Amino acid sequence: MGFLSVLSMAHKWIAERTGLGDTVIDATAGGGVDTLALASLVGSGGTVYAFDIQQEALDRTQERLASLATEDRLPRLRLLLQSHAEMAAAVDEDAHEKVAAVMFNLGYLPGGDESVITQPETTIAALDAALSLLRPGGIVTCVLYPGHPGGELEAAAVEAWATQLPGSIAAAVVYRQPQRKTAPYLVAVEKRQR
Amino acid sequence: MGFLSVLSMAHKWIAERTGLGDTVIDATAGGGVDTLALASLVGSGGTVYAFDIQQEALDRTQERLASLATEDRLPRLRLLLQSHAEMAAAVDEDAHEKVAAVMFNLGYLPGGDESVITQPETTIAALDAALSLLRPGGIVTCVLYPGHPGGELEAAAVEAWATQLPGSIAAAVVYRQPQRKTAPYLVAVEKRQR
Repeated sequence: MGFLSVLSMAHKWIAERTGLGDTVIDATAGGGVDTLALASLVGSGGTVYAFDIQQEALDRTQERLASLATEDRLPRLRLLLQSHAEMAAAVDEDAHEKVAAVMFNLGYLPGGDESVITQPETTIAALDAALSLLRPGGIVTCVLYPGHPGGELEAAAVEAWATQLPGSIAAAVVYRQPQRKTAPYLVAVEKRQR
Repeated sequence: MGFLSVLSMAHKWIAERTGLGDTVIDATAGGGVDTLALASLVGSGGTVYAFDIQQEALDRTQERLASLATEDRLPRLRLLLQSHAEMAAAVDEDAHEKVAAVMFNLGYLPGGDESVITQPETTIAALDAALSLLRPGGIVTCVLYPGHPGGELEAAAVEAWATQLPGSIAAAVVYRQPQRKTAPYLVAVEKRQR
C-alpha cells in the first residue's frame, strides 16, 4: 500500500483536528491545491485565510476554489497579498487563538518564478505567528523542500524551531522519507491544551 | 488529541498491512506486549514467531499470550531462545517471502537486566534477514531508544541502514518527536511490490 506521502500526512493530521465552521490558514497559497482541501474541511460556515506574495498565486487559488461556490460549499475566503510573516496582524482579532490549522508548503510557486522562494527569517516569524493564532489542540504543518537552493537551510531552521519549542507549549513531530536526501519532509506542531 | 506515540504508529502501520492467517515476527519479544498485539492481528489461523535471547522474556511472553488461548484466538506460536540475527534460518522455509510484518523494539527488557542490550551488528543483520523474509508490501518496524548507553549509536546505524536501501527494494520512513533528544523514534521499511 505504500506509506503516506508527507503532503498526504499533513492533510490527514489537519483533517483529524479540523471540522465544519472552523477557521484555517493556508500560509503559502501557491496554486491553491492545499487551500481547496482546507476549504472543503471547514465548509460554507468556515473561514479560510490564504497568504501569498504573488498575485498570480492568489488568482490561481481563487479560480481553483470557484468549484465550491457552485455547490454552496465555499467558506468565507480571505486572499491576502502579503507576507505570511504578517499573519498575526492580518487575521481578525476575534479569530486569535481560535484557528484550527495553519498549513505551510514551502518553496516556489509551481510553474511560476522559481527565484521567488520563502526565506528562513520570514518563515520562522510566520511559524511563531501561526502557533500564537492556534486554539489549543490546533496544528501547524510545514512541508519542507531541502532539494532546491536555500531549501536545505530553511528546512534545518524550521526543524530547529520545532525542536526547541517547550513541551508545555506544543508537541512536535517529524515525518520523513530518508532514502532521498532532497525529498520533501514534514514538521508538524500541535498546540497544547491549557 | 495529540500525535500518535512512535510505538502506536508502529502498531498502526503493521495493522494496515497484516490480516487474519498471516505470519508475523516479533524480533524482540521482551515482555510480550508487542507479541500479543501481533497475535491478535493474525488470529488462530496465523503464525507468530517471537525471538529473545533471555528465557525470562519468552516466559513472560508465553504467559501474556495465554489469555488468547481461552478465547480460541491463539495463533501458532514459536518462541525461540536465540538471536534475531539468526531469524532467516529459524523461520520455516515455506514462510520465506510470505511474512507480513517484523517488529523490532530495541533496548533492554523492562524490569530485566539492563546490561543485556541489543547490539548494532546483530540488529543490522537481523533487519537484513527480516527484509528478506517479508512478502512484497510487508513491513519491518524498528523502535529505537537513543536515550540508553549505546542506544544512540544503534539508532544511527539503523537509520543509516534504512537510508541506504535502494528504492527498488523497499520504501523507508522515519517518525520522530524531536523535542526530546533521547525520546524513542521509529524507522519503518515496506518491501516493494515486484
